[in-house]
Amino acid sequence: MPTTKVEIRSGAYYDSVILMQLQRSLAEQPGVIDAGVVMGTEANKDVLSQSGLLEPEAEGANPDDLVIVVKGDAEASAQAALDKVDELVSSRRSSGGDEDYRPHSMETAAKMLPDAHWVLVSAPGRYAAGVSRQALGLDRHVFLYSDNVSLEDEISLKKEAATKGLLVMGPDCGTAIVNGIGLGFANKVRKGPIGLVAASGTGLQQVSVRIHQMGGGLTHALGTGGRDLSEAVNAITARQGLDLLSRDPETKVIVLISKPPAPKVAGELVKAARSAGKPVVVNFIGYATASRRVDNIFFATTFDEAAELAMELVDVAEEFAAEPDISKFARGQRYLRGLFSGGTLQYEALLILESYLPVVYSNAPLDKKYRLEDSLVSVEHTVIDLGEDEFTVGRLHPMMDNDLRLRRFEKEAADPEVAVILLDVVLGYGAHLDPASELAPAIAEGIKGAKDAGRHLEVVAVVSGTDEDPQGMAAQIELLVEAGAKVETSNDAAARYVGRLLQAIERSAEPAEKIEMAQVDLERLKKPLAGINVGLESFTESLSDQGSQVVHMNWKPVAGGNAKLAGIIERMKSKA
Amino acid sequence: MPTTKVEIRSGAYYDSVILMQLQRSLAEQPGVIDAGVVMGTEANKDVLSQSGLLEPEAEGANPDDLVIVVKGDAEASAQAALDKVDELVSSRRSSGGDEDYRPHSMETAAKMLPDAHWVLVSAPGRYAAGVSRQALGLDRHVFLYSDNVSLEDEISLKKEAATKGLLVMGPDCGTAIVNGIGLGFANKVRKGPIGLVAASGTGLQQVSVRIHQMGGGLTHALGTGGRDLSEAVNAITARQGLDLLSRDPETKVIVLISKPPAPKVAGELVKAARSAGKPVVVNFIGYATASRRVDNIFFATTFDEAAELAMELVDVAEEFAAEPDISKFARGQRYLRGLFSGGTLQYEALLILESYLPVVYSNAPLDKKYRLEDSLVSVEHTVIDLGEDEFTVGRLHPMMDNDLRLRRFEKEAADPEVAVILLDVVLGYGAHLDPASELAPAIAEGIKGAKDAGRHLEVVAVVSGTDEDPQGMAAQIELLVEAGAKVETSNDAAARYVGRLLQAIERSAEPAEKIEMAQVDLERLKKPLAGINVGLESFTESLSDQGSQVVHMNWKPVAGGNAKLAGIIERMKSKA
Repeated sequence: MPTTKVEIRSGAYYDSVILMQLQRSLAEQPGVIDAGVVMGTEANKDVLSQSGLLEPEAEGANPDDLVIVVKGDAEASAQAALDKVDELVSSRRSSGGDEDYRPHSMETAAKMLPDAHWVLVSAPGRYAAGVSRQALGLDRHVFLYSDNVSLEDEISLKKEAATKGLLVMGPDCGTAIVNGIGLGFANKVRKGPIGLVAASGTGLQQVSVRIHQMGGGLTHALGTGGRDLSEAVNAITARQGLDLLSRDPETKVIVLISKPPAPKVAGELVKAARSAGKPVVVNFIGYATASRRVDNIFFATTFDEAAELAMELVDVAEEFAAEPDISKFARGQRYLRGLFSGGTLQYEALLILESYLPVVYSNAPLDKKYRLEDSLVSVEHTVIDLGEDEFTVGRLHPMMDNDLRLRRFEKEAADPEVAVILLDVVLGYGAHLDPASELAPAIAEGIKGAKDAGRHLEVVAVVSGTDEDPQGMAAQIELLVEAGAKVETSNDAAARYVGRLLQAIERSAEPAEKIEMAQVDLERLKKPLAGINVGLESFTESLSDQGSQVVHMNWKPVAGGNAKLAGIIERMKSKA
Repeated sequence: MPTTKVEIRSGAYYDSVILMQLQRSLAEQPGVIDAGVVMGTEANKDVLSQSGLLEPEAEGANPDDLVIVVKGDAEASAQAALDKVDELVSSRRSSGGDEDYRPHSMETAAKMLPDAHWVLVSAPGRYAAGVSRQALGLDRHVFLYSDNVSLEDEISLKKEAATKGLLVMGPDCGTAIVNGIGLGFANKVRKGPIGLVAASGTGLQQVSVRIHQMGGGLTHALGTGGRDLSEAVNAITARQGLDLLSRDPETKVIVLISKPPAPKVAGELVKAARSAGKPVVVNFIGYATASRRVDNIFFATTFDEAAELAMELVDVAEEFAAEPDISKFARGQRYLRGLFSGGTLQYEALLILESYLPVVYSNAPLDKKYRLEDSLVSVEHTVIDLGEDEFTVGRLHPMMDNDLRLRRFEKEAADPEVAVILLDVVLGYGAHLDPASELAPAIAEGIKGAKDAGRHLEVVAVVSGTDEDPQGMAAQIELLVEAGAKVETSNDAAARYVGRLLQAIERSAEPAEKIEMAQVDLERLKKPLAGINVGLESFTESLSDQGSQVVHMNWKPVAGGNAKLAGIIERMKSKA
């Protein structure tokens, strides 16, 4: 008759690999139907129960207790298997073979392998912060795989690391690739020009494998742990990662991945990313954005899209390095005036400019708090829709009649605070048959007037039309260009060009503040990776397989995992 | 000495072209410095004031008054110009030449050109609804350019049109292209496979010119007027447009453009668009979306992007026509069970599935109200992250240890309500060295068990890895495929495939309801366009230039624009 036998061991520590292997070995013993070997947490007891392995004796087990359950086809076979537990555990343990050569302290490990700049920590959560703190004390970066680490520990570890120019990836950081070597779970991805910063383990993996599958490759892929982008942690590791990859000349494109961050943190990270000087693909999975692109930031919504965007951007990355030339503007010139005839062109321009300029006033604003008090009087940055109903009672639409716009243009051009005037010129049937013939002279005059007054007036015109339109698009463009205007056929491109220009002016007035952090040494990151591994043996094997030098530290919890005893030892230490 | 003279004419109607031409003619008179000819609205008086043309006499003018201002270098020249007003107006009027041949009523116009299925209305706003109503009465589509039309009139016109299978584009509809002919403001765009529906005039124009510039072309571009997507109007015209273009075999891809609609209307329109049977690019300018794609819907954030997406989708449009084959599933099979080892893969899958399935339960849901009460027990559609902390205390991560997942898989496969099981298989260093060897037998067994019970179990596996991973990606995929799984390397693609499948099952259970509207006749839309134009003469010229037949109706407001008199006449008519 099938019988289930249970054994509970209190205060004993075994690593998870050993537990898994013990469970498998038990299940393979003669007459055994199923076996379970777990720590006695509620979740684990539920799992036992689902498998029909939760006997009354196991129900009372604590999270610190090791629960061993064997279901045999008879009482004898179950008991026989249980009796073999110690033998199975120690046979497994000795199979490692080189136990004697493994250091028992991190100091020894560090002396054995002085080049090991990385410490991998996968000890159980409640011990992991302590181990990590030791690593930071020895000036090592930390790859902190363990989960169940408290938020307070995470914050204090990361703050300490930041002041020392060290990285703490994690806790609960499943994966990273540093200089071609995978830490934790990591795919073999070829080297290449894309760098990743990710608060999401399988996100990092999926994006890196998609990049590899498309023929691309990575410089570094830096994990941060899932909580890094919370308001409490304030993205310390992600900021360090962004900064590192921005400075790394081999990284041409950066990809930033996370589940939706705290909005404040998201905003600050995106702001930091905008001064990276290279394209940054952002995938805050499930984070709704109204724009798909802001300056050098490209928002992706899936991992596939992030990988594809990154691949496409590699070829054009150089374009993002240069700042626009603003030396030609006079002191005090800083505002935009947009004079649109097309309502939706104006609306799209406002929407794009929103990502560049803090406030843009309008007679048809995105947010009504920026509505102009008087549509006829511009305030700071102002973009006007001259086709609004207020202007068209008993008057032709501005696409047909330029009168109102010409009068306004003249006034704006004469304003010494104006740096840029943005116009649309909509061609096609129904529209004015030769708008450039009226606009071009006004533009030339405005530019000349500014020049005479020692200023530079930038005029940007969006020409919306086709080569078959009755006005003759090429001729219209030629007239405008001759008058001194920069002409775009894309409203999107025109608005972004203007935004970049004005933002550069704004930045030159008040440069952005830097976050107080010691820089992480880029050169050290580029050395062949060597590490000390504390916890899962498989991580040591992985590093070896990848050709990295690694020391496996023979870590055991203080007092063999007995929390009470460990507490006493800790207190004695702190008194010493 | 410069002197400004003013003349005010009450209750007189002139169309805007005449006012513009009068102003220009006056400005060209000898000794005249500037001139203004406007209706006496507050906005127009502000404009006069800005130009230094607002004299005290003009300040008291009403919106119905025509205000004529002339600034001369001396009183005599200003007065001389003013004295020529009547002469200038009548010389312009007679220059049309063919006034005598123009009908004065719409009935006559319709008889003159029975093929004119379209009436273009650009009469002043307060008259425009009445003119449009006449057109609907004569079974004509209406292109309503006029602005300043009331919301109530818009709703009543559109409701009437919808019951008759007619379109009312507008009010404030600046542009449309029907069967190659531009109405209002419209660019000359070549014919091609893309159809547009737009609540935004220059948005429609900008997207169509960008399509043309890239070598593409349009079937029809249907304007709706800017208020159509408000909750009050409920997108009557946009729905008609979508329906028309969905039925039109020549339209391969649809583009839908609007400023952000009312959220309820946006949701309903997107829902309608999903059954279009072809790709629909949606650009609700400034409308934030978390996904960039849902099924056949592609969200664009700028006009350029909308045009580019539409061009790319033309080639693959056929793929969207077919519904997935769900005949193999047994009655009652309808749920998804997702068993993920990768947390962020699970998160992305949930995010994508959100657009397909009303509710997906999880131990790590997007919205906590869909959190499973018991992580071990699936409810309806359920997607589990087996790597959550709750499962990993004293237990290896599911990327290393398949035990938990195998047990769960077996259980889900046996559930007669389950149609699809979705899995991830994450390869790489640190992960299980041969996961497929454990998963494939379970998959084969699950599929066989379902088959034996008369069901079909669809197993979809996302394999995340590279060809250089230690597991050997190709071999892993082969094992899974042999076991009967559908394998994807993109999580995105896998989730969408599953979403489409389950949605088809759901739809087969309860088909979507149709909106009550008379269908607009597609064949009539495809006939050579002919029209009756009421209002701006330039629109008549445009149609002529494009080779369309057009009758210009010699419209004047009742009682010459005298509102009091018009009211009396209206009342007399209604009594008759």
